[in-house]
Amino acid sequence: MNPADLGLPVDVPSTALFTDQYELTMLQAALRAGTADRRSVFEVFTRRLPEGRRFGVVAGTGRVLDAVENFRFEPAVLEFLREQRVVDEPTLEWLADYRFRGNIFGYPEGEVYFPGSPILRVEGTFAEAVLLETVVLSVLNHDSAVAAAASRMALAAGGRPLIEMGARRTHELAAVASSRAAYVGGFSSTSDLAAGFRYGIPTVGTSAHAFTLLHDTEHDAFTAQVDSLGRGTTLLVDTYDVTEAVRLAVEVAGPELGAVRIDSGDLLLVAHRVRQQLDALGAHRTRIVVTSDLDEYAIASLAAAPVDAYGVGTQLVTGSGHPTCSMVYKLVARAGSAAPDAPLEPVAKKSLGAKTSVGGRKWAARRRGADGVATAEVVGSGEIPAELGERQLIVPLVTKGEIVGRESLEAVRERHVAARAGLPMSAMQLSRGEPVLPTEYL
Amino acid sequence: MNPADLGLPVDVPSTALFTDQYELTMLQAALRAGTADRRSVFEVFTRRLPEGRRFGVVAGTGRVLDAVENFRFEPAVLEFLREQRVVDEPTLEWLADYRFRGNIFGYPEGEVYFPGSPILRVEGTFAEAVLLETVVLSVLNHDSAVAAAASRMALAAGGRPLIEMGARRTHELAAVASSRAAYVGGFSSTSDLAAGFRYGIPTVGTSAHAFTLLHDTEHDAFTAQVDSLGRGTTLLVDTYDVTEAVRLAVEVAGPELGAVRIDSGDLLLVAHRVRQQLDALGAHRTRIVVTSDLDEYAIASLAAAPVDAYGVGTQLVTGSGHPTCSMVYKLVARAGSAAPDAPLEPVAKKSLGAKTSVGGRKWAARRRGADGVATAEVVGSGEIPAELGERQLIVPLVTKGEIVGRESLEAVRERHVAARAGLPMSAMQLSRGEPVLPTEYL
Repeated sequence: MNPADLGLPVDVPSTALFTDQYELTMLQAALRAGTADRRSVFEVFTRRLPEGRRFGVVAGTGRVLDAVENFRFEPAVLEFLREQRVVDEPTLEWLADYRFRGNIFGYPEGEVYFPGSPILRVEGTFAEAVLLETVVLSVLNHDSAVAAAASRMALAAGGRPLIEMGARRTHELAAVASSRAAYVGGFSSTSDLAAGFRYGIPTVGTSAHAFTLLHDTEHDAFTAQVDSLGRGTTLLVDTYDVTEAVRLAVEVAGPELGAVRIDSGDLLLVAHRVRQQLDALGAHRTRIVVTSDLDEYAIASLAAAPVDAYGVGTQLVTGSGHPTCSMVYKLVARAGSAAPDAPLEPVAKKSLGAKTSVGGRKWAARRRGADGVATAEVVGSGEIPAELGERQLIVPLVTKGEIVGRESLEAVRERHVAARAGLPMSAMQLSRGEPVLPTEYL
Repeated sequence: MNPADLGLPVDVPSTALFTDQYELTMLQAALRAGTADRRSVFEVFTRRLPEGRRFGVVAGTGRVLDAVENFRFEPAVLEFLREQRVVDEPTLEWLADYRFRGNIFGYPEGEVYFPGSPILRVEGTFAEAVLLETVVLSVLNHDSAVAAAASRMALAAGGRPLIEMGARRTHELAAVASSRAAYVGGFSSTSDLAAGFRYGIPTVGTSAHAFTLLHDTEHDAFTAQVDSLGRGTTLLVDTYDVTEAVRLAVEVAGPELGAVRIDSGDLLLVAHRVRQQLDALGAHRTRIVVTSDLDEYAIASLAAAPVDAYGVGTQLVTGSGHPTCSMVYKLVARAGSAAPDAPLEPVAKKSLGAKTSVGGRKWAARRRGADGVATAEVVGSGEIPAELGERQLIVPLVTKGEIVGRESLEAVRERHVAARAGLPMSAMQLSRGEPVLPTEYL
């Protein structure tokens, strides 16, 4: 086991405690009742997209694989569970040998999803599969929320680079996962060094207002920065007076100045003025980076402004109004006995309100029209129609406990762009609306 | 160093990479310019509370201390920074010896805060203090957002216990910090085993719908659970038909049944019916736990319902509409030279829009009326008026690099209750409004 595979920029011995207590008490009761070994199928899906969103983005699958691989009950963990009397001795013994030996299938990371899409399917005994519920949902609900916001921002930016700068606005390790999810969704770099260390995402950053304020004059600050970081650096020009700072920046760095950054004010207006001023000073190739409380709408509103890159923080890491997805992990089929050949029977909750689910182990495919554009998300538990066989979405991720679905973040980024491009044009609109594909159940 | 002090349920060698790249490039430029050793004061504050909120809750201070203590640049980290050319060799040498040797003061954890409250003050050389910006903000912005939601929910629950169940809706390590923050804000337990392991927060949990669906009948499932977990367990009664399930639950467990849990439907209506039914069956002491998409408003709406405990997930860990705070880390004073006796001079950004700040190293006090109720948050950088001397809010947390501000979570919980109780009555309202205290600058 390589602890670095955990997805953290840190050594972590196990993910087994990222678990709600009821998973262990259910295990204990099922072990005692003789039902723990019934073959079971759990599926991850959402009943709806966040209000107004046109599509979801699957992100975190790679981190799920890391978490599954490292899901072990170490002696210190078992001792904690014993002391706190979370479960009994037979259950502790069972946990000591735990490792997931079943199969996991799912939408590949970067794919889009819709209400009812079986995003992940975990197959094994009830005992081994039920334990993964919380950690699987934590990863997918968080990462997919950030990736969906990132994807919308990438659409709004229309090819201009997006820099992820949200670490300070979210938990320090959620920040690392957010950088990763933002990269999946189309961002090109991050300010977060831990994300660079762990995932190889390009890191960027030069200076804050504090650096200007540290020095006796803005001239001193710019000179110090250019002396040390070179003329290609990005100078922050809104500590005092923007026009004076831009003049000074070009005076100090020359027209080879890499970029200026604007972090406050009316960005549309200021960007136009700064571009004019830079051009007048001969700094035609000096870029303009803007970074103040941007979301996808603010980015879109700057489409006609002379902006070369956007830095995005708060709204990215908080999912632009939707900081989590509503993915659930539900038992959809299980055998009627622990015999290995006992057939799977579909099961589903049937009680009050909207919280019902569709039983059965499902396939999923994306139907396309003659023009190649997607027309429906098709989900079923019976035989897959022949014409959809080529359109299946679910791939193997873990086979008999072995991880088989690892891939590079570059491949995931490309998949997301391709998947989004296959959707109807209305997927590109930022405005609120219904999911761009209906989900059909066969 | 005890890695467990990091606040994670895992071994972590360092928090130094939870840092935005610009902190290191500023360091490099300041080292070269000879300004890195200027004595500096950074303050953490917010310019506003989340819209409609009456007060903020300081949470995460204990985790900040863990992060500061473990902020070291290990060889693997330095090698990463070298390979990626983030900073130059002199800077890497400087980082290899880094540890924070300055002072940190702040509002004690659990205290309430208002716009402009100097929640944390970091004093040291520019170099040593600038590096802590991102990790300090990550921790405080996240944890305080969750604690503020928790505090409102605790007010709404009016003494009934609140169970934190949000792990599946947020990043797996943000979940652990969320449990901690919820506990600070008034929750009494958590479903998250990692939070129990790391912080000693009481953990709870019994079963999910999957457990009922695993078994051939609800009767089998309830029997299995009671056999294993005892009659004091909580049976989930909304998988099929609630009335039938409640009847069955008491049949299987007897009137000693600990509790039933309802996770869907019209909770107000269902809770009343279930209470009636339990009473009719003689199960007068069987409690009712409700757990479906609750927020502070839903909790308040159940005040008159026969509910004994609330389980809260999504809305807690996402800060009930405000998943982050807007805390910033700003240089407010610095010396004009690196001489140790050079006097501090206040500094402040003065550019466009609302993003200005107030310079100077600040004290803070809460003014109270004759009835002991708070009337204003008073912040100043000059002499503190004598009548406010007893009302000061800021305490030492780190002195010359040594952590002096550690305390138990129990003490923090008690402080929060006391601090909230000292606010005007309107702080108890859930409705949107202005901060209950004005901030006065002296």
